[in-house]
Amino acid sequence: MSTFGTLFRVTTYGESHCASVGAIIDGCPPGLPLIAQDVQTQLSRRRPGQSNLTTPRDEKDTVQLQSGIEHGITLGTPIGLLVRNEDQRPHDYSETDLYPRPSHADWTYLEKYGVKASSGGGRSSARETIGRVAAGAIAEKYLKLVFGIEIVAFVSSVGKVHLPTNMGSPSQVPDDDDDSVEDSISPEFVSLLRTVTREQVDSHPTRCPNPEIAERMTKRVIRAKDAMDSIGGTVTCVIRGVPSGLGEPVFDKLEAKLAHAMLSIPATKAFEIGSGFRGTEVPGSKHNDPFFVKADGTMGTKTNWSGGVQGGITNGEDIYFRIGFKSPATISQAQETVQYDGTPGTLAARGRHDPCVVPRAVPIVEAMASLVIMDQMLIQNARKTSASLLPPISTLPPTMVKPGQAQVNGKH
Amino acid sequence: MSTFGTLFRVTTYGESHCASVGAIIDGCPPGLPLIAQDVQTQLSRRRPGQSNLTTPRDEKDTVQLQSGIEHGITLGTPIGLLVRNEDQRPHDYSETDLYPRPSHADWTYLEKYGVKASSGGGRSSARETIGRVAAGAIAEKYLKLVFGIEIVAFVSSVGKVHLPTNMGSPSQVPDDDDDSVEDSISPEFVSLLRTVTREQVDSHPTRCPNPEIAERMTKRVIRAKDAMDSIGGTVTCVIRGVPSGLGEPVFDKLEAKLAHAMLSIPATKAFEIGSGFRGTEVPGSKHNDPFFVKADGTMGTKTNWSGGVQGGITNGEDIYFRIGFKSPATISQAQETVQYDGTPGTLAARGRHDPCVVPRAVPIVEAMASLVIMDQMLIQNARKTSASLLPPISTLPPTMVKPGQAQVNGKH
Amino acid sequence: MSTFGTLFRVTTYGESHCASVGAIIDGCPPGLPLIAQDVQTQLSRRRPGQSNLTTPRDEKDTVQLQSGIEHGITLGTPIGLLVRNEDQRPHDYSETDLYPRPSHADWTYLEKYGVKASSGGGRSSARETIGRVAAGAIAEKYLKLVFGIEIVAFVSSVGKVHLPTNMGSPSQVPDDDDDSVEDSISPEFVSLLRTVTREQVDSHPTRCPNPEIAERMTKRVIRAKDAMDSIGGTVTCVIRGVPSGLGEPVFDKLEAKLAHAMLSIPATKAFEIGSGFRGTEVPGSKHNDPFFVKADGTMGTKTNWSGGVQGGITNGEDIYFRIGFKSPATISQAQETVQYDGTPGTLAARGRHDPCVVPRAVPIVEAMASLVIMDQMLIQNARKTSASLLPPISTLPPTMVKPGQAQVNGKH
Amino acid sequence: MSTFGTLFRVTTYGESHCASVGAIIDGCPPGLPLIAQDVQTQLSRRRPGQSNLTTPRDEKDTVQLQSGIEHGITLGTPIGLLVRNEDQRPHDYSETDLYPRPSHADWTYLEKYGVKASSGGGRSSARETIGRVAAGAIAEKYLKLVFGIEIVAFVSSVGKVHLPTNMGSPSQVPDDDDDSVEDSISPEFVSLLRTVTREQVDSHPTRCPNPEIAERMTKRVIRAKDAMDSIGGTVTCVIRGVPSGLGEPVFDKLEAKLAHAMLSIPATKAFEIGSGFRGTEVPGSKHNDPFFVKADGTMGTKTNWSGGVQGGITNGEDIYFRIGFKSPATISQAQETVQYDGTPGTLAARGRHDPCVVPRAVPIVEAMASLVIMDQMLIQNARKTSASLLPPISTLPPTMVKPGQAQVNGKH
Repeated sequence: MSTFGTLFRVTTYGESHCASVGAIIDGCPPGLPLIAQDVQTQLSRRRPGQSNLTTPRDEKDTVQLQSGIEHGITLGTPIGLLVRNEDQRPHDYSETDLYPRPSHADWTYLEKYGVKASSGGGRSSARETIGRVAAGAIAEKYLKLVFGIEIVAFVSSVGKVHLPTNMGSPSQVPDDDDDSVEDSISPEFVSLLRTVTREQVDSHPTRCPNPEIAERMTKRVIRAKDAMDSIGGTVTCVIRGVPSGLGEPVFDKLEAKLAHAMLSIPATKAFEIGSGFRGTEVPGSKHNDPFFVKADGTMGTKTNWSGGVQGGITNGEDIYFRIGFKSPATISQAQETVQYDGTPGTLAARGRHDPCVVPRAVPIVEAMASLVIMDQMLIQNARKTSASLLPPISTLPPTMVKPGQAQVNGKH
Repeated sequence: MSTFGTLFRVTTYGESHCASVGAIIDGCPPGLPLIAQDVQTQLSRRRPGQSNLTTPRDEKDTVQLQSGIEHGITLGTPIGLLVRNEDQRPHDYSETDLYPRPSHADWTYLEKYGVKASSGGGRSSARETIGRVAAGAIAEKYLKLVFGIEIVAFVSSVGKVHLPTNMGSPSQVPDDDDDSVEDSISPEFVSLLRTVTREQVDSHPTRCPNPEIAERMTKRVIRAKDAMDSIGGTVTCVIRGVPSGLGEPVFDKLEAKLAHAMLSIPATKAFEIGSGFRGTEVPGSKHNDPFFVKADGTMGTKTNWSGGVQGGITNGEDIYFRIGFKSPATISQAQETVQYDGTPGTLAARGRHDPCVVPRAVPIVEAMASLVIMDQMLIQNARKTSASLLPPISTLPPTMVKPGQAQVNGKH
Repeated sequence: MSTFGTLFRVTTYGESHCASVGAIIDGCPPGLPLIAQDVQTQLSRRRPGQSNLTTPRDEKDTVQLQSGIEHGITLGTPIGLLVRNEDQRPHDYSETDLYPRPSHADWTYLEKYGVKASSGGGRSSARETIGRVAAGAIAEKYLKLVFGIEIVAFVSSVGKVHLPTNMGSPSQVPDDDDDSVEDSISPEFVSLLRTVTREQVDSHPTRCPNPEIAERMTKRVIRAKDAMDSIGGTVTCVIRGVPSGLGEPVFDKLEAKLAHAMLSIPATKAFEIGSGFRGTEVPGSKHNDPFFVKADGTMGTKTNWSGGVQGGITNGEDIYFRIGFKSPATISQAQETVQYDGTPGTLAARGRHDPCVVPRAVPIVEAMASLVIMDQMLIQNARKTSASLLPPISTLPPTMVKPGQAQVNGKH
Repeated sequence: MSTFGTLFRVTTYGESHCASVGAIIDGCPPGLPLIAQDVQTQLSRRRPGQSNLTTPRDEKDTVQLQSGIEHGITLGTPIGLLVRNEDQRPHDYSETDLYPRPSHADWTYLEKYGVKASSGGGRSSARETIGRVAAGAIAEKYLKLVFGIEIVAFVSSVGKVHLPTNMGSPSQVPDDDDDSVEDSISPEFVSLLRTVTREQVDSHPTRCPNPEIAERMTKRVIRAKDAMDSIGGTVTCVIRGVPSGLGEPVFDKLEAKLAHAMLSIPATKAFEIGSGFRGTEVPGSKHNDPFFVKADGTMGTKTNWSGGVQGGITNGEDIYFRIGFKSPATISQAQETVQYDGTPGTLAARGRHDPCVVPRAVPIVEAMASLVIMDQMLIQNARKTSASLLPPISTLPPTMVKPGQAQVNGKH
């Protein structure tokens, strides 16, 4: 449905051609400083018309906060917000009144509901993501303020142009006995994950933080645009500073919630965390992340193939994952297909379309990541606080209790 | 938490060393013929000790149905079931009392809960999956009986040994301008998806339906086993015969729920549906699936890069997806790491471990797929039935209504 | 939290002094004719300023539908809606800045959140109910159109002025052995439940359908108003035409969901269904509702002490229940109490207050009733449809299968 | 469905004639000392055969804990538990194979599911409550250990024999202008609520803590039993020591959750909290609970008409509420009714039936109360902890911030 989350919960409404799109964010902690600009920044990163790589629809997407805040402080009550739909131009889509766009949601929405919005795919519109981005910005504000958590997404590939990780790629060529060194994450990529900032990401329209690769990505997008075609890509996201212990066994493991969140973004087809698919080729002896004691006395892992999650629970290391976005379905190139009633014909979609969505997907990925972490953090806080109120545990073998827990735990 | 699903809902309990593991399945339609053997078959495919590729723990895993069924027919009330834990041997794990196993859930469980099960990772144990498999078998029985839906998973890679799909792999090599033909799914793979059966899958211990590749996979597993090491792999799953219209926009798109379900399985790190990551490199003009009218008069798509889902909603084509399983964390090889209290040392885990989990993961993947489809089917049935009771729609433009809907819809 | 329902789900936002109050209604069946007036009618019945019995705040409460509807037909996607807050006058409440109003939510909101809205009780404001009423109106439109369900609430008491039911009241006087005839529902009351309409209810400002009693109620309210005091009352609601089979055992019995829904309305303290508390004094032999075959061949019950629900499931008879609303906490009369910081003093709340809320509560009760029935109907439709697709049951004893079920059930 | 709760969640299975009844309790804080006896005590208070007032079915109801506990300490993972069904005797019910028992769930279950359990009402069986009682006992253990919360329920009426509260009863007699003093809670009843213990409650088989009234209740039950009839009654429950701030506006107010919980218990028809229905007749000036500063410096209310809840949120005062149980539907007395197929006839139910369920309902009420408080406590802990991590609030007017909050709140 249109609600995501358990304790920090966002519910959205709206499609591309109605009066507004909006969201209700429920469960925001009271006492958080929050003004419209906190939300607007990410909305502006999401909106179209930012460069010649995206659709020229220039919608202002100005957020209007409705409730839940007074004097710039959250009250703990639901935050209602909305963004008016300004630039609707419904006639651009007239040809798609007859044709369901191949690989778009037009036909499946009609199958599902029996009726469809005049714009076609209804809630599959990219405008639906506005509510998510707004909600994510609020969650992120909290996470940054309280834990110093940093969430940065960037474009890691466009078509075949990849930001190098030096991990090679899943082998299709028979090479059964080669466990060679190519399968390691390069120090450069590790360093990028540890340090990349949104400023770096935004310094190039493609939102790839490597200028040389970014330039090649641009060319790839332009080539698609010139061909009235489209091209896909991937977004990688890193979350730094997450405390250990988040993620709910067994069905709500952190990676499961992240995958759910990410594959709910339009046009996504793939998700991997840590070493992902490539890690499946690496033997356990190389893939395991050994523990060590960090300078500050806390536990860490020497490597991070796990991507910050073990057994569905965060271990305090950087969480990183990658999402695959397919090439946009709406293209101006002629396509042989059939009409809703089965009549064969040729569809050439008019209107303004993104030849590549990954640059604009960056803030959406960040938003969904924020929502997942925030919700899991609240749930774990409930457990942790309630456990900390119990008397110290004296009956368990020491190996079953967190070192120091028996002493520090209770107050009785 | 330990509950999955909205209307068809499974809740599980149990870890590897307690009295039993079990589940409550709520929301099963009444009137379904169901006996223990329906569940036992999949449990037996899941259990260890089936070949020399898996752990020698030979647990019978006999299911005991407790409620919700009389005279072999479901009552519509919750079905309680359990499987006794017979072979516990807790002492095998004594060394891991001191060491958190690298990349295992031992340490994160302790961080999360402050206490941990004597077996270490608690609910991260593979035995936890018994409840899922049992629940999935019940869902699957319904789906097969009513819709003829077939769900078949198989091992598609072990280490670098891949079942060929002829799609190549995501390019890391700069080759920006090559949209070449390598990026297509081979007719052989398409045919395999359309026809593969569980009998074919089970005819080889690796559960790879291609005998030659299966043999190479076996060698790869044996090599890991001999080296006291482990190796990962991927499982591909196809769901045939699903009606169009399943999947709930926007946060509960079918692929989002499938990804959630699959990444809740232990040791998973990656998920892709349809063309997945590889599809991100294919231009829209090639990647789009054009519509056509099938011999039976219904709409279909000529290709199926989408994997049976568009806009988060099924389109009636085969649903297929791939899940990446990392190399098991528990290996007998010595590992340099630290103890719970920070003392450095060497861990060599004794006990019985699977060198490779993907063959046993096959029925678990099928179970989770069944649970997702069943739940979405019930939700869509609620909508479809309630919509069908409304009067015919006469005020909408014809292009907004499913052809024939205005006539057939209502009874007023 | 601020979301109610499983498949038909409403989420609300807003307090009395923010920009707007609103709601998102998710899960509305597609194809329902819906215009703003459908919602406005009930909102206008809820709003203040309707008579001299209610607060003189004259807010227009004009609903603005945002999404989910095109050409007057629902799309099946979320319906966003909002009502601007026009008449805010925050200064009226200045004295309550120092004093938590006794028996109001001011103090508990502050305890819960650490911060509070400037208006005091935040979301406990009656304006919060606007979202519910709007959502309920949409559900009701469906229920009436498809099933002919009628939901009518009315004021059944104000203070000690009661609409007679001839059931007496729970005895406090020792009279252990008297099972006398006073404990029966009068034919007049049964007839009222069967026939009462909203027009009759609205024909008097108190919303009591008995003119004589209504007049006495008016006097009671005026007396409270003149004394700068307040008075409580009860609302009775009847739902006619609900199909049998709604309500989900065991935790979501229909009466449990109704009680939950009703006691979520501000100022409510009590709920009873059917014979309620009074029925606890009637022996089973008199209280049981014997079955009979109705003129149309379907099963009915001769009496209806059960209130249309048995075992948490509707039986097709009229559902009726009663809700107790306490006397409003905000009164202008001086009250000895303490300030937030503990300083003793006297509070005399200025501003505009309802001396009695029950007349305005009528549409809110109807709305919550609609939401419960609609949601349960969708859930039961999911079950019923999925069960109907199964083959006929031949292995169960005939006494365990609904007569005719084995024949009509399946299509195999 | 069969799951109750958000963070502390119980799921149950089982009906009266299957292999076992059981439950999965998810979300229990880790580190809680827990042994079977903690659960068994309440189960034994619930089970039949405790006195000549209840059904002679003497089932041992021995609980078997399955998981989630090691060395007597909870792990934080789900606790599975079950109780075998020992005394089934299905043939006792043979006559009810033909007749749906009037006012029982037999007919509605059949309407809902199309099939029914051989025992008739399926999950409406009192045995279903075993899982709740077990889960509640675990929640209660935590609440008592950490907060010293005491939950005590007792029988407050059987038929017309009431434990006096001196509040009179809702007036049906026209007495519009009498706001007389009879409408106050007697000091004796207030004192009872503050002090009553389970030992006192259990000292008489009726579970009424007033010996004289208890004796009269006994006679009333015996009279029903001798007449092959049944009689209803009420249970009052008090919860002492609950911290302020629990309860989630707006749909999950504490009283709404309590009402939901209580009306999910079989045979319940009514719920009221605090002054309840009787309070609706008391003017606000008398009904409001003025604040005062208690000896320990915290805020309290002089009276407690509110029942410990204001605006859906606990205020720290005793929570008390009353539940109405109808007379049991299954009676041995002959009843004129019809068979499932419509044939008229006379039903005289054989078998063992409780003539009055309220004594056995006492631990069930306590269990459901525990579940609600525990869940709300966890949710509020999540909020409170997350809010406490924020920096102090300096931008809000002092009247909007909890006294001392700005200083003590944050750590930045």
